[in-house]
Amino acid sequence: MAKLRGKALVAQSGGPTTVINSSLCGVVQECIRSDEIEAVYGGHNGILGVLIEDIFDITKETKMTIEGLKRAPSAAAGSCRYKLKSLKESRREYQRIVDVFKAHNIRYFFYIGGNDSMDTADKVATIAGENDYELRVMGVPKTIDNDLAETDHTPGYGSEVKYLATTVMESGRDTEALYTFDAATVVEAMGRNAGWIAAGAAVAHRTEEDAPHLVYVPEIPFSFRKFVKDVKETYKRLGRVVILAAEGLQDGRGNYITEQTGDFAKDAFGHVQLGGVAETLKSIIEKEVGIKCRYNKPGTAQRNAMHFASLTDVNEAYLVGAQAVREAVAGGSGFMITLIRESDHPYQVSTGRANLSVVANGEKFLPRDFMNESGNHITEKCRRYVLPLIRGEAPVTIGPDGLPEYVRFKRYPVEKKAGEFKI
Amino acid sequence: MAKLRGKALVAQSGGPTTVINSSLCGVVQECIRSDEIEAVYGGHNGILGVLIEDIFDITKETKMTIEGLKRAPSAAAGSCRYKLKSLKESRREYQRIVDVFKAHNIRYFFYIGGNDSMDTADKVATIAGENDYELRVMGVPKTIDNDLAETDHTPGYGSEVKYLATTVMESGRDTEALYTFDAATVVEAMGRNAGWIAAGAAVAHRTEEDAPHLVYVPEIPFSFRKFVKDVKETYKRLGRVVILAAEGLQDGRGNYITEQTGDFAKDAFGHVQLGGVAETLKSIIEKEVGIKCRYNKPGTAQRNAMHFASLTDVNEAYLVGAQAVREAVAGGSGFMITLIRESDHPYQVSTGRANLSVVANGEKFLPRDFMNESGNHITEKCRRYVLPLIRGEAPVTIGPDGLPEYVRFKRYPVEKKAGEFKI
Repeated sequence: MAKLRGKALVAQSGGPTTVINSSLCGVVQECIRSDEIEAVYGGHNGILGVLIEDIFDITKETKMTIEGLKRAPSAAAGSCRYKLKSLKESRREYQRIVDVFKAHNIRYFFYIGGNDSMDTADKVATIAGENDYELRVMGVPKTIDNDLAETDHTPGYGSEVKYLATTVMESGRDTEALYTFDAATVVEAMGRNAGWIAAGAAVAHRTEEDAPHLVYVPEIPFSFRKFVKDVKETYKRLGRVVILAAEGLQDGRGNYITEQTGDFAKDAFGHVQLGGVAETLKSIIEKEVGIKCRYNKPGTAQRNAMHFASLTDVNEAYLVGAQAVREAVAGGSGFMITLIRESDHPYQVSTGRANLSVVANGEKFLPRDFMNESGNHITEKCRRYVLPLIRGEAPVTIGPDGLPEYVRFKRYPVEKKAGEFKI
Repeated sequence: MAKLRGKALVAQSGGPTTVINSSLCGVVQECIRSDEIEAVYGGHNGILGVLIEDIFDITKETKMTIEGLKRAPSAAAGSCRYKLKSLKESRREYQRIVDVFKAHNIRYFFYIGGNDSMDTADKVATIAGENDYELRVMGVPKTIDNDLAETDHTPGYGSEVKYLATTVMESGRDTEALYTFDAATVVEAMGRNAGWIAAGAAVAHRTEEDAPHLVYVPEIPFSFRKFVKDVKETYKRLGRVVILAAEGLQDGRGNYITEQTGDFAKDAFGHVQLGGVAETLKSIIEKEVGIKCRYNKPGTAQRNAMHFASLTDVNEAYLVGAQAVREAVAGGSGFMITLIRESDHPYQVSTGRANLSVVANGEKFLPRDFMNESGNHITEKCRRYVLPLIRGEAPVTIGPDGLPEYVRFKRYPVEKKAGEFKI
């Protein structure tokens, strides 16, 4: 494969994660190590920044800032939920992206995101091809949801689970101490369609005493009657009950058990915005079981908890970022880097690659045998899958004030060259 | 003062904290070091355990378990919210407590709790006196709320704030990355009447960029109109806004801005149970400001977050526990140990003591000058007060599964000797 000299652009998309910046760091440092890549630009707020040519020069940031990305949560380059549609509907935008790349001699495009982002990256590659513009496009997997096809797991998931499991464990100790008063607690996990997060965090349940005592995921239709029975039985046995529930619990007919209405009920991708599963379950427990119930909703804290991240996850996030660059420099394009689990004992992974279009159209759900027959807790199989992903601590720098210190980009702007564009 | 030989009983009360077990460890280890104290018993679930003679022998636990209390969140002996009333109304219960102590030759009573617990301890001391039963009673301060009179601050507060500030900081990075979509986030802090927690966690705001951008506390009457104006101004300036709000926000007439109704609206102490401030503010922001808003409600996770506790707090919690024993053995009774701040630079504390009855009837609110004139953020004075309390990390033991390991008591039961009692 011929060498391709030019600049690289990297962008982040979708919901932040604790380690998406570690992937960014992998991309940037590997670009810096490469002879072919002259500079690394960042798209501010994902593809939005490319469209409006809001681009900054990451190579001008200090080495310390770039290195600090390995321990900074959320998306330092900014993220977005701007949805590009089919080639037919959004051709103007895809063309614009290629035009911006051309204007800056950007020959490498690294997009860190989930399946929607892989779809965007795939279509950008197509349009570049139609334009006879040599562009190497690589996807870097990212999502706390762990629902991407073709990869054993996704960077972001391990840290999400490590933190949430710890939160459930610690909340469980509260209920254990105060069960004579607050006998039940519901912890709400993220997870719109897939139960990976709730199931993952359920590994906190090491013994019968340990929370969570009951776990509910979107893949298994939620039955109010069954739920009340589960809670009553657990309460009878232990005198308390801690429940871990995914936000996207659904009845058997594809309806979320708690749908919001109103202006902001759907996000830009058409996904229904959820909230309120914890409140709903609390209300059921108080009414139907007759015990007082609290609820905790960690919300966005759970996907940015760098102060207690998984070192395995941080390192793998870096690996997929750096590998994307290595493969692109070697001539690869149109792939997302995947993680392949080579073995559990000792835990070993290697990287592979999957066609962007295959990832874009896939969605990976929690296997049924990761949950018990009753559908209210995880199995050993699930535990074996999850545990290697949450191992290792990644201590952060603590400032003199006792709080973590996380880097920020200065964002040195790149001069605009591609003309105006209205989005 | 004559030496007093006998057993000690220690109990924990009220809402758990991250470091209440560190105080328990201080009590237990100091008792073990004392020649006068023959054994340390624990009251299971606070005063409830004493009343029903559900008592266990802590001296039979392993040294490792006892030492492990320094790094275990929540209340290992169990807690309660069982409220004893005035001497007149609850004389039968106070007498029972003294009877149980007599039956076991318990001569030292250490009660770890807040002002309600200090009230209970005070009255137990009175009844023991009336019975001519020599009993030394000491209170050990505990509450995340930091609202106890007579002490510079309370153990539990520093760890609460360190964790919540970090949570707000990390949630803030999420909003910073995704502001083109989710422009606002509300984080709900505990704090029914006092704003110490919300104000404390506001130290995460180191620069204009850093969350929280707005802070609201119960001591300052909440105005919907002012709130909307604050949010609009901040959004205009930064393009995003992260709000930290205490759960107990009130209008100027003493009404919570969100009162729950229903069966569980009040706890056993007659306190109104709160929830929903975050949802309420989210709804106001979406309707009145027209930007999408998320909310995070860490709930009980915030008071049990041992995985990111303040070492200063852990150590001070131990100190007040051990000091209570030292003072009791030296003849003291009827006091709560207090923390006296000797200096900020370097931070130094000493212990003092306050009459239990004075603490019982006091409540310490956030000083007005800890908040700015506008009532929507903290002042430097507040920051200077808070920062020393959140310094230092207290790493926990991580198991082979990547999650914290926290000890539990075996709870070796003590034989009942005091006869039946109905509560």
